[in-house]
Amino acid sequence: MTNERREKIESVLSKRQNDLTVVLENVFDPHNISAVMRSCDAVGIQEIYVLNTKIPRHKKWGPRSSSSAAKWLTVHQFENTNECFTELRSRYSTILTTHLSSDAVSLYQLDLTKSVALVFGNEHSGVSEEIIQLADGNFMIPQVGMIRSLNISVACAVSLYEAFRQKNHAGHYEKQKLDAEDYSTLYTQWELNHE
Amino acid sequence: MTNERREKIESVLSKRQNDLTVVLENVFDPHNISAVMRSCDAVGIQEIYVLNTKIPRHKKWGPRSSSSAAKWLTVHQFENTNECFTELRSRYSTILTTHLSSDAVSLYQLDLTKSVALVFGNEHSGVSEEIIQLADGNFMIPQVGMIRSLNISVACAVSLYEAFRQKNHAGHYEKQKLDAEDYSTLYTQWELNHE
Repeated sequence: MTNERREKIESVLSKRQNDLTVVLENVFDPHNISAVMRSCDAVGIQEIYVLNTKIPRHKKWGPRSSSSAAKWLTVHQFENTNECFTELRSRYSTILTTHLSSDAVSLYQLDLTKSVALVFGNEHSGVSEEIIQLADGNFMIPQVGMIRSLNISVACAVSLYEAFRQKNHAGHYEKQKLDAEDYSTLYTQWELNHE
Repeated sequence: MTNERREKIESVLSKRQNDLTVVLENVFDPHNISAVMRSCDAVGIQEIYVLNTKIPRHKKWGPRSSSSAAKWLTVHQFENTNECFTELRSRYSTILTTHLSSDAVSLYQLDLTKSVALVFGNEHSGVSEEIIQLADGNFMIPQVGMIRSLNISVACAVSLYEAFRQKNHAGHYEKQKLDAEDYSTLYTQWELNHE
């Protein structure tokens, strides 16, 4: 591995944010999942959750797919909602869904500098009622157009970049957030990715 | 047309922003163009520019495609860069490209409440050198991940929603921006869209 690559890995790891994650609930289209993963990588999210209770476990990504952002992320797959939420609760302070309900607040009213998991739902049915009940709140991306639906990869990117903007402003990218053990584990794994 | 639809049209037209536009230079993939159009509609952009100097004129969108946002937008197609820029210069104060050059400023440093046209380039080659020379400046979407490229529909959505955030904060969606003639022309056209 070249020095340049080593410095790149160190730079990226030093900016990984362990207080922000994305949960994809029954998101079906591999292109959407792939686009979401690229956005996660771009804003420094390391861990994401894939919860499939209604569709089969995904097999499309993995370390063999060089074009995928998956090899730079830690992807947790669940088929059981309660198990997924137990883990989310142990690691993030707040869980928010994106759901166009009457009590949804605007993305721009959220404080995304705090520890938070953002849940995005299925392309057609959205976030399930079960998840909405289990979560702490809803948010929506304001829209003023004739068509009121954004693609999930677009909605996720807009949400994650608002988090990026707030976190950047609050200095979250200026000091390392990963603890020494996580940093070291990922470093070793990413070195192997390059071989 | 129902009263509900009429109110929807009035509400959307009252929020259309005539001081923000998107220029797509040789963007090839119809899915990307369609996604960009949905994002434009969502943040209240009415007019967009499609400049194809290296690829054939697009035929994929149009009033017949009900799933497309195109029927709620005014799409200007150009095959000549100078003609396109003459029109852009007559209507927008600043033209900015998205290009990862050394003099690119962060999206979050831009004042997007001013009159501006944002140029996005081809999926593979980006914005052309010719356009970069003609434009007033470059901006980039900050990225801190291992993979340094966002899909164009994602990049465009993130940029447009940052414009939305700034414009909303500055009260741009609180009073009608279209002049009476443009409002009336679009109203008539949109009534026909519903028939």
